[in-house]
Amino acid sequence: MDERIKKQIEFALEIDKEKNIFRQTHLSNNGRNENDAEHAWHIAIMSYFLQEYSNEKVDIARVMIMCLIHDIVEIDAGDTYAYDSEGLKTQNNREKIAKERIFSLLPTDQKKEFISIFDEFEENQTPEAKFAHAMDNFQPLILNNSNDGGDWREHNVTAKQVYGRQSKTKDGSKKLFEITDMILQENIKKGNIKEV
Amino acid sequence: MDERIKKQIEFALEIDKEKNIFRQTHLSNNGRNENDAEHAWHIAIMSYFLQEYSNEKVDIARVMIMCLIHDIVEIDAGDTYAYDSEGLKTQNNREKIAKERIFSLLPTDQKKEFISIFDEFEENQTPEAKFAHAMDNFQPLILNNSNDGGDWREHNVTAKQVYGRQSKTKDGSKKLFEITDMILQENIKKGNIKEV
Repeated sequence: MDERIKKQIEFALEIDKEKNIFRQTHLSNNGRNENDAEHAWHIAIMSYFLQEYSNEKVDIARVMIMCLIHDIVEIDAGDTYAYDSEGLKTQNNREKIAKERIFSLLPTDQKKEFISIFDEFEENQTPEAKFAHAMDNFQPLILNNSNDGGDWREHNVTAKQVYGRQSKTKDGSKKLFEITDMILQENIKKGNIKEV
Repeated sequence: MDERIKKQIEFALEIDKEKNIFRQTHLSNNGRNENDAEHAWHIAIMSYFLQEYSNEKVDIARVMIMCLIHDIVEIDAGDTYAYDSEGLKTQNNREKIAKERIFSLLPTDQKKEFISIFDEFEENQTPEAKFAHAMDNFQPLILNNSNDGGDWREHNVTAKQVYGRQSKTKDGSKKLFEITDMILQENIKKGNIKEV
């Protein structure tokens, strides 16, 4: 087996581990915690059938691959909950080390390409990255809403915290932010999200 | 909320159920059974970094969305194991009914589009469908090989059965079929796959 394909297969087996990284979000119907691979699958499909709501026209292949790989570093760095302020302080550094190790399993040209896709997502400047971020926010929002806000209640999340995160959705999709706002207001009214 | 986006959100929540459809394949490191959403995520990424091995140039966005949705019908129809000859007899009919119900949750234009992507995969005639099929075969192969062929041993699978399925990989990728053949021969030698 030549070196190139050997490295690619090694990478394929390494990322299998993402299926064991669990998030705070629960599946619909008050299911178990969701893992990173499932989340990435879900937002990649959603990006495809919701692309009409992107503020700017996007290269959908780029958005999909970005969605698919955006959490791969969590194989080493673990999932950092969006409202875990302590974890968020060290997140960047943990993910930087992980990124280098994991993408180095690929042939050099593909390592470079995947790091550029990953960094583009993190820097959140292009239409593709902004729309992928909108998906990354919108998917747990609708899951959590379908479970009557259980994840927000469990973590005593405040409106300020949720809006802090979800307002980024605007940069990718004004339309989806309108829906987000509607859902958040309902959950504040129900007491699932604390007003202060 | 307008009718269109309401339908799209309903579809997004419906496909969440794919995370609860379990396959016969086990995760690497002799892990638990894999579910359909994880499998689809895995093959969509693999299609991206293995596309150089496709026999024909492919539209990678089309391959990725095909990989992502190809098992959605199993939400209703269940997973049919590749070597379950009884299940295979009724598979088409079960999946046809499921396809109609699930994709009908989408707005009509998107229902039509997703059914056309799904059917293209099933008919297996285009370069994209052939390469997506190669991924659908190659991913469980390398997982199973990494687990010393546990899934083949558990189901007493014969070389004839495995080659029957895996030989389709050739139509999508001659190169990946060479690797497949190499892996199968090793597993026959080890007794993980029965010679007859």
